[in-house]
Amino acid sequence: MGDTLLPAIGTEILIPACSLVAIAFALLQWLIVSRVKLSPGGLDSAGANSGSGKNGYAEYLIEEEDGLNDHSVVLKCADIQNAIAEGFSGATSFLFTEYRYVGIFMVAFAALIFLFLGSVEGFGTSSQPCKYDPTKLCKPALATAIFSTISFMLGAVTSVVSGFLGMKIATYANARTTLEARKGVGKAFIIAFRSGAVMGFLLAANGLLVLYITINLFKLYYGDDWGGLFESITGYGLGGSSMALFGRVGGGIYTKAADVGADLVGKVERNIPEDDPRNPAVIADNVGDNVGDIAGMGSDLFGSYAESTCAALVVASISSFGINHEFTAMLYPLIVSSVGILVCLITTLFATDFFEIKDVKEIEPALKRQLIISTILMTVGVAIVSWIALPSSFTIFNFGTQKVVKNWQVALCVAVGLWAGLIIGFVTEYYTSNAYSPVQDVADSCRTGAATNVIFGLALGYKSVIIPIFAIAVGIYVSFSFAAMYGIAMAALGMLSTIATGLAIDAYGPISDNAGGIAEMAGMSHRIRERTDALDAAGNTTAAIGKGFAIGSAALVSLALFGAYVSRAGISTVDVLSPKVFIGLLVGAMLPYWFSAMTMKSVGSAALKMVEEVRRQFNTIPGLMEGTAKPDYATCVKISTDASIKEMIPPGALVMLTPLIVGILFGVETLSGVLAGSLVSGVQIAISASNTGGAWDNAKKYIEAGASEHARTLGPKGSDPHKAAVIGDTIGDPLKDTSGPSLNILIKLMAVESLVFARFFATHGGLLFKI
Amino acid sequence: MGDTLLPAIGTEILIPACSLVAIAFALLQWLIVSRVKLSPGGLDSAGANSGSGKNGYAEYLIEEEDGLNDHSVVLKCADIQNAIAEGFSGATSFLFTEYRYVGIFMVAFAALIFLFLGSVEGFGTSSQPCKYDPTKLCKPALATAIFSTISFMLGAVTSVVSGFLGMKIATYANARTTLEARKGVGKAFIIAFRSGAVMGFLLAANGLLVLYITINLFKLYYGDDWGGLFESITGYGLGGSSMALFGRVGGGIYTKAADVGADLVGKVERNIPEDDPRNPAVIADNVGDNVGDIAGMGSDLFGSYAESTCAALVVASISSFGINHEFTAMLYPLIVSSVGILVCLITTLFATDFFEIKDVKEIEPALKRQLIISTILMTVGVAIVSWIALPSSFTIFNFGTQKVVKNWQVALCVAVGLWAGLIIGFVTEYYTSNAYSPVQDVADSCRTGAATNVIFGLALGYKSVIIPIFAIAVGIYVSFSFAAMYGIAMAALGMLSTIATGLAIDAYGPISDNAGGIAEMAGMSHRIRERTDALDAAGNTTAAIGKGFAIGSAALVSLALFGAYVSRAGISTVDVLSPKVFIGLLVGAMLPYWFSAMTMKSVGSAALKMVEEVRRQFNTIPGLMEGTAKPDYATCVKISTDASIKEMIPPGALVMLTPLIVGILFGVETLSGVLAGSLVSGVQIAISASNTGGAWDNAKKYIEAGASEHARTLGPKGSDPHKAAVIGDTIGDPLKDTSGPSLNILIKLMAVESLVFARFFATHGGLLFKI
Repeated sequence: MGDTLLPAIGTEILIPACSLVAIAFALLQWLIVSRVKLSPGGLDSAGANSGSGKNGYAEYLIEEEDGLNDHSVVLKCADIQNAIAEGFSGATSFLFTEYRYVGIFMVAFAALIFLFLGSVEGFGTSSQPCKYDPTKLCKPALATAIFSTISFMLGAVTSVVSGFLGMKIATYANARTTLEARKGVGKAFIIAFRSGAVMGFLLAANGLLVLYITINLFKLYYGDDWGGLFESITGYGLGGSSMALFGRVGGGIYTKAADVGADLVGKVERNIPEDDPRNPAVIADNVGDNVGDIAGMGSDLFGSYAESTCAALVVASISSFGINHEFTAMLYPLIVSSVGILVCLITTLFATDFFEIKDVKEIEPALKRQLIISTILMTVGVAIVSWIALPSSFTIFNFGTQKVVKNWQVALCVAVGLWAGLIIGFVTEYYTSNAYSPVQDVADSCRTGAATNVIFGLALGYKSVIIPIFAIAVGIYVSFSFAAMYGIAMAALGMLSTIATGLAIDAYGPISDNAGGIAEMAGMSHRIRERTDALDAAGNTTAAIGKGFAIGSAALVSLALFGAYVSRAGISTVDVLSPKVFIGLLVGAMLPYWFSAMTMKSVGSAALKMVEEVRRQFNTIPGLMEGTAKPDYATCVKISTDASIKEMIPPGALVMLTPLIVGILFGVETLSGVLAGSLVSGVQIAISASNTGGAWDNAKKYIEAGASEHARTLGPKGSDPHKAAVIGDTIGDPLKDTSGPSLNILIKLMAVESLVFARFFATHGGLLFKI
Repeated sequence: MGDTLLPAIGTEILIPACSLVAIAFALLQWLIVSRVKLSPGGLDSAGANSGSGKNGYAEYLIEEEDGLNDHSVVLKCADIQNAIAEGFSGATSFLFTEYRYVGIFMVAFAALIFLFLGSVEGFGTSSQPCKYDPTKLCKPALATAIFSTISFMLGAVTSVVSGFLGMKIATYANARTTLEARKGVGKAFIIAFRSGAVMGFLLAANGLLVLYITINLFKLYYGDDWGGLFESITGYGLGGSSMALFGRVGGGIYTKAADVGADLVGKVERNIPEDDPRNPAVIADNVGDNVGDIAGMGSDLFGSYAESTCAALVVASISSFGINHEFTAMLYPLIVSSVGILVCLITTLFATDFFEIKDVKEIEPALKRQLIISTILMTVGVAIVSWIALPSSFTIFNFGTQKVVKNWQVALCVAVGLWAGLIIGFVTEYYTSNAYSPVQDVADSCRTGAATNVIFGLALGYKSVIIPIFAIAVGIYVSFSFAAMYGIAMAALGMLSTIATGLAIDAYGPISDNAGGIAEMAGMSHRIRERTDALDAAGNTTAAIGKGFAIGSAALVSLALFGAYVSRAGISTVDVLSPKVFIGLLVGAMLPYWFSAMTMKSVGSAALKMVEEVRRQFNTIPGLMEGTAKPDYATCVKISTDASIKEMIPPGALVMLTPLIVGILFGVETLSGVLAGSLVSGVQIAISASNTGGAWDNAKKYIEAGASEHARTLGPKGSDPHKAAVIGDTIGDPLKDTSGPSLNILIKLMAVESLVFARFFATHGGLLFKI
């Protein structure tokens, strides 16, 4: 069983134990959040629970001071929250509609996986000589087909559950954050952050536990054929990622159609504030934040996590770990994630219990501190884990040969991914936070109108690509040199090892955004809105950081999957000088553009429909502008729902069908070119689109907040520079929340799909070139 | 001397003869243009010359009808033309300033070439065993260093002369086009088109003749060492392309700083028409059209032409042509270009003599017809040339091996490039002409404001990439499969074989644009302005087509140069699975973003300065708005000049230094990754940026012209949708005229520079990985 310090039995205990601790911790956080009662009179208990007076500098309620009726405000908040979460047209309803369609796709695709993989050996049921060691017998391709299909379904269901839980928690927390904001910005921050942590920990633990159990169950059949076992497990990554596609794309279209539509009529034409309850699209906008930014982001990161683990496992299974059946070393990727969860747990305590937020200005540093603490602690964790869970020397499969690797080298791979993630996070923050000159320059360019704002914003996005790409390149070079494709996969996992904290910070943003919306709709005082706005501004930056992490890890994951695909397809070199590969590279680099064109056009068209509907309501419902009549929220929600369901099909088909068509018609070599091309091109567009959008959003907020002398010369709200900034913000919406983040999925999903079907393509593919 | 039907003596006659015929034809066109006198009373002669009544349906002068004094109008036009072309602050003056700076760079870089290449064999003067046939002796590396330096200087000078001549002709023709517009749209079209033809033919002939003479002179020294001879000739491509860098980037920043600055204050703030003489930036804008769109485009296409010829020659020199010293077959690339010139000559007659333009609507079809006719005729030409100038079977160098190739296969390579160019042209037209639905959709989205206009425009640009990339991919696959890298180079040359027609059509655009400006400034009637506007609208579409050709050919050229580089650096595979190559690929794909960020920011900053100056003049010069005082044009010209000279240094340095730094520090393999990455990523951004910008420009023109029921619902000028369209147009300016087209140069120049320094990098490079 290998010479690791940690015995197999320790591994068997450690992984599920960590998962269960994380789940318990998440439930504890939920319990604390739930102390904030959404029924009148239950407000004090939360304060008592979170340490009486800590994390909230003012214990009086603004509403009471303003003489508003407390009971009716609480009831109104509960009402709005209910409309967003449940009800006829809420987030739950949308997700169920989405899942119904996605379910059909899932079953059809599962059938495809079974048929294609089963056909590799003509559905034979007898064991075959193993590919990498022909002296042994391996399970038949039919078994791989069956188990890949099962793990695909499991991955898909886990992803759906993750997204759904995230959405549930977020909608549970938003009104509670609003109510806490009456007591102080610190209180509100803690509630929003704890809710984010619920999602982060549940998702991380969920993914780890399901994968662990699946591996153990599959082992009952596969026994010593670890190559076959972990080949089947890759279906888990495919399942997770294909659900993420619909979450990201469908959710992204939903949220931005509503947001852009609401802003274009509400803010630009009617001059009413954001989230004003008179705006018919306001509920759709708030629902969208939950289905896009929460459920979509959750599925995306879960997908990355599942894929990088699968990529590492599949390479490990044909390295010395798998060949010699070293259980602890084999499950090293899962152990890293387990320790990551513990690290994040400690890190969370820093935000919730060790420090307290006393001022608006402390929010962003507090969130940044989370990233730094988790990275530092995890570096120590990685060193320990690599020392106890890996033999001091072993071999790693490297495109046909076995490369000797030391345990400290793998530790460095994980660490380099972890730190590359932090660098990407900080660069993203620099380019998207309005505390620094890049965003301030963009805001300043609004002086000469929307055109210069857009030119400067696009240039900023392009520029923000430089350092992250160098960070990723260094990460790739180091980890590749040390441990080939296993090193890349572990670097990706390193970047994702602090996923629980990352998700907590990410989810915090939309929760705060919604809290602000609820405050506005419930007619609470503008001082509360100011507090939620401050929470939200920090959330914008952290959202950009989260997207930076997501795309950085997606790049590494895709490369690792690409390496695994190449190994399994039996390709030893991917030579750019071969025309087959080069045209793949060129066309692959084009795919992100095609995909972005589809998603942006979808958002644009859906927003146009939304605009027409909102205008129609303002024109035909008497008393709507005056606030005496209620708008018809449901129709707007329906427009977003229908658009997102209908419009996610073409980009979804592009992503899902490209590997199949290229693999079947042009063969494994051209497909390897396509994967490499879409990877190197997609990363750039994704980063630049996210950062451009984030910068425009915060440039607008910079002018609105008017916190500095410079900012005040550009404002106030409604000034010409502010109008130009609003235009930039609206353009940025689909870039940063639809097309940009969806590209992560494009590059990951094509890679994992190719990996799953690699043996099929190698056997039956390349029809056109065979003519 | 090989078994070609065309004997060597025939080749010796054919190439210079075609060049001289083209020069004579260009001079004849110039003579016809010069018949339009820029002194009062000389108007009739031109009409008499061009066939009495043909190509102009109305022989009366609108000005006379309007009762304006003919003499003063002509004098005013002459004055303005003079201000644009000559004078203290005109195009000539700018180009001389630019060339002074560029000259310093040229000398420094020439020294670098000599030192680096000379150092390959330690500046030894004795002959060495040949690389590809060690039984023979080849000239020393020092000779390559000297002759590469000479050919670099020759290429640079030819490029500068080409750009300068183009600018001279364009400024000579613009006022004449305005004057002819008084007689009819057909007359004006012919003058503009003939002037474009002067430039097209002079440039094509010039490039061919200088190259031909250089080869013959170098042969005196090199004798039978054709490998060394054509290795030195690649300096010609490098020289041409490095001048194009400054032409495109410097010219692009100049023209767009002036254009954006003029529009932002004039059109948006002051509500005065485009090209109004009261606008202080108007002369700078018109000068910019000539230095950016004419001189820049001319240098760019000349660079592509020189590079693809060099790439083909260098591969041919180590194939059977070079080994067996088959002179005619060796010069096949030059013969193709010679025949191309003849084909373009015949094609031009269709526009100038066989057909006549009677209506505004006939302009765009007439220009399109030029492309189709030249492509069809050239296909025949290619078949004949390949039959007489190539042996029926021969071998081509293919990364270490010799591949047997038939003459018809090479003919197909040329044809596939030619037709891929036409497809790219038509797709570009579809996406940028306002006769089709894509641009109309963009115009329609202006209804909901600038934000949706930008979203739809960006999506259109992304979408317009799809078909051109497939066309290029098919071209690459076919030509690569038939004749390896020689096939790619010949496909590129095929696309460029009709360069004379392409340039004529391209140059036509800015000439018409300037003609409109002169009509406005000379205070001519709005009916004349309408005619020049119609000429200009067609010019916008053809400009986009020209950019499509430029980028399509640049992609093929870069790939051919890449192949030549790889061959010369002694690399046999460029394996994406090697970390060295992959990080190169990733970073290479990032470079176009970095470069675009620089150029866009440059335009933005320069435009901001221009805006401030124009505002200052409107605020401080009494009587300027009323037209009683003259603005200070010179200061605006100075802002554009200074900005373009200063701002072209960082992007220029990025392009020129990247291959040197990567080659020296990381070695030839990483450099090959960088080249492939920047190629596959840069092509996409270049196409999408050009088309997005073109579409926005024509969406605006669509609303302004109000030619259809739909267009009229969006207009008139000054309506909200029109204002939104103007914002899109302004954003598109730097995309389509600065950052987009400059990317051609980025990918070509890095490739040719790597090729020239390949032996140096292979000998001394890769320092970092050697540690």
